[in-house]
Amino acid sequence: MQFKLTKEFIEEIKVLVSNGDGEQILSALENVHEADIAEMFDVLAMDEAQFIYRLLDEEMASEVLVELEEDVREKFMEALSAKEIAEQIDNMDSDDAADIIAEIPEGKQERVIEHLEDPEQAEDIVQLMQYGENSAGAIMGTELISVNENWTTNQCVAEMQKQAQDVQYVYTIYVVNDKNELTGMLSLKSLLFATENTKVKDVYMKNVRSVHVNESQEEVASMMKKYDLVAIPVIDFNDNLIGRITIDDVVDIMQEESEKDYQMASGISENIESSDSAWRISQARIPWLMIGLLGGVLGAKVIGLFEEQLAEIPAMAMFIPLIAAMGGNVGVQSSAIIVQSLANNTLDLGTTFSKLMKELLVSLINGVVLSILIFLFIFLFEGDLKLAITVSLSLITVIIFAGLFGTFVPLALDKRKIDPALATGPFITTMNDVFGLLIYFLIGYWVYF
Amino acid sequence: MQFKLTKEFIEEIKVLVSNGDGEQILSALENVHEADIAEMFDVLAMDEAQFIYRLLDEEMASEVLVELEEDVREKFMEALSAKEIAEQIDNMDSDDAADIIAEIPEGKQERVIEHLEDPEQAEDIVQLMQYGENSAGAIMGTELISVNENWTTNQCVAEMQKQAQDVQYVYTIYVVNDKNELTGMLSLKSLLFATENTKVKDVYMKNVRSVHVNESQEEVASMMKKYDLVAIPVIDFNDNLIGRITIDDVVDIMQEESEKDYQMASGISENIESSDSAWRISQARIPWLMIGLLGGVLGAKVIGLFEEQLAEIPAMAMFIPLIAAMGGNVGVQSSAIIVQSLANNTLDLGTTFSKLMKELLVSLINGVVLSILIFLFIFLFEGDLKLAITVSLSLITVIIFAGLFGTFVPLALDKRKIDPALATGPFITTMNDVFGLLIYFLIGYWVYF
Repeated sequence: MQFKLTKEFIEEIKVLVSNGDGEQILSALENVHEADIAEMFDVLAMDEAQFIYRLLDEEMASEVLVELEEDVREKFMEALSAKEIAEQIDNMDSDDAADIIAEIPEGKQERVIEHLEDPEQAEDIVQLMQYGENSAGAIMGTELISVNENWTTNQCVAEMQKQAQDVQYVYTIYVVNDKNELTGMLSLKSLLFATENTKVKDVYMKNVRSVHVNESQEEVASMMKKYDLVAIPVIDFNDNLIGRITIDDVVDIMQEESEKDYQMASGISENIESSDSAWRISQARIPWLMIGLLGGVLGAKVIGLFEEQLAEIPAMAMFIPLIAAMGGNVGVQSSAIIVQSLANNTLDLGTTFSKLMKELLVSLINGVVLSILIFLFIFLFEGDLKLAITVSLSLITVIIFAGLFGTFVPLALDKRKIDPALATGPFITTMNDVFGLLIYFLIGYWVYF
Repeated sequence: MQFKLTKEFIEEIKVLVSNGDGEQILSALENVHEADIAEMFDVLAMDEAQFIYRLLDEEMASEVLVELEEDVREKFMEALSAKEIAEQIDNMDSDDAADIIAEIPEGKQERVIEHLEDPEQAEDIVQLMQYGENSAGAIMGTELISVNENWTTNQCVAEMQKQAQDVQYVYTIYVVNDKNELTGMLSLKSLLFATENTKVKDVYMKNVRSVHVNESQEEVASMMKKYDLVAIPVIDFNDNLIGRITIDDVVDIMQEESEKDYQMASGISENIESSDSAWRISQARIPWLMIGLLGGVLGAKVIGLFEEQLAEIPAMAMFIPLIAAMGGNVGVQSSAIIVQSLANNTLDLGTTFSKLMKELLVSLINGVVLSILIFLFIFLFEGDLKLAITVSLSLITVIIFAGLFGTFVPLALDKRKIDPALATGPFITTMNDVFGLLIYFLIGYWVYF
């Protein structure tokens, strides 16, 4: 039976904590994975979590620390001295270590680094912290196994036994030349099946894919996904092998990336979860609502301009929400398609112009169908030809306008290196609301007067 | 220099194809990865792609076939005989083979399977095709390396040399007992460092995580992500080891899952890309626009009910778009937060009631701030106290209503095992538009009359 974290298990643990029964807690947690313990800490009260945390052995404690949500981890680290944090970091891989030290307030950072046991590890970590955010360097680890192309496979195994102590999982063995330049990789399989005096040179794979330390994380993720890689080596300006990136870190980045796009499209400006405080959730939501409010005020101004017209033909007010909503919906659709194909980094031979032409065609198809429907509805059920003409003409115009606008804005942002996802969601619906109203009343004016 | 697929490269290839220069094409494609060739085929004309495809050697051709987009692959397979397809499938992993055979029309399927070279492989594939869609069985492959716990490590290496022919990458070695029940796994590292007569029993890791063949793919993905796994073994009802799932397949599933949620939230009903035909894109978009149109018609009916009131106070028309838009925005925000935390499968101790209470608090905070702003704006700039009261009171009511509605609907859908993502996007904005208008006019009626 595999362990599964349940509400009942957590209730049990809470009781044990309130009894202060350390031994029982440790035996309950014996086969529990660090990721499950971290998940449990996310939902326990801080003092309960810290009580348990102090019971864990050093290695487990440091693994749990790595797995914690960032905000929970910060609180944990506040309660620990620089020396205690350093002891935990001694057990971590360099990439996790660098990420976690970066979360500590600056003054304390230095003291933590001073307390690290292994000066070489400390140097690696300081180096890793200097790579630009979102670069390959910022997510790579320096723990890896590399062998020289001139060795025999026997020498490799002996050398690997030394190196492998630092490396939890061996994904791949990298091959370098005498200048430490990456030249290829050696599969464990070929090493296992090699005869005594095989040379690495004769069995390794050349043409290995690598990334430059300054490459963007998105590019790393899309390469690993495209070529189905489990790990990718990282090289510096001299083609020297300096680290590796593993798929588990890339999976996290992919997830964050797509969550960010989703949240932007939904009008949420920060990475929040339903378990965050109401205060934090409000803060992440209100900026987008302000945009909506501003759009509403502009919309009111537009309608205000046509107040006399509206007083003469009050029936026009009835279709204000329809025009506004359809502009918003079409804009969100067309911008989402663009944002998603930009995110997927799919090869695209089309120009901005050809994309706009295609969107024009899509909008025409949909616009004609929907306009005919609304024309028939108004003409048959309301018996008002002028209104039917006004609404249906406005609708097709708004659909075309919103479609083109929703296609153009993210493409233009992307060209200027601004995140195109900004153009989805509340921003695009608000803009289209305002323009849609303007179009509606102008067409109404033209039809009626 | 690593190969990168560019527009220029594709132009070059197009020229070579039009010259019918097969040799040059093959030399240009020599170090190009199958994923890049497949990506190129996506943008080439079908006859160009097929010309190149026929030049590739058998193994490369089958790898490219696996990497193609589904719609392009279908066209390719139409042009191939059952025997030709079978030859390509002979080179594939069982999981890819089963997926691809499933795409062939039924009559042809049987003929393809009959033509497969290896009867055992054929049996595996037929078995794989029978697992339920979205189950672990449907994405697992049967190629794996397993050893008996009673063997010595030397025996393992000898046995693995036989098994490893079928297995492209060795991620892990699974350990089974005499009944073929999965009991653990053996790291390549420990095998490499073992002395001559070490028994597997003494060095393997027990407590390995596995999934049941009927487990859902989402659950498999979330386990592999949580526990940072590169591969996971699959067992059947008798705990027998029957397959393995690798991280590259799971990465694809995760991506599809989040793309689907994103598209639903944007009102797109199928998995489409910007490179699809205008006709296909229109079809994926129009159903949601129909919902919007219906909502607009209902909105018109609501306003129609209050036509007399509107004739007396035409200024009320000005803020119709504001109320409708804000209801939509808030609904999308709150439903997105719920959908995302359901998708992440994060442990949540809260009940539906406690989530609604939190959303009430969030809505109150945002509602009060925004209502005060709009009250001040209308009162100070329009000088209309009654209108200011009507709009600000309606706004806070709509925000609270839309927030609660957006929280409740996806939770209710999820409880009924319906995809909660259905509740985001056009559906929720349309509902909130209509209710928002009703609230606005009722409050207006109450304030003015």
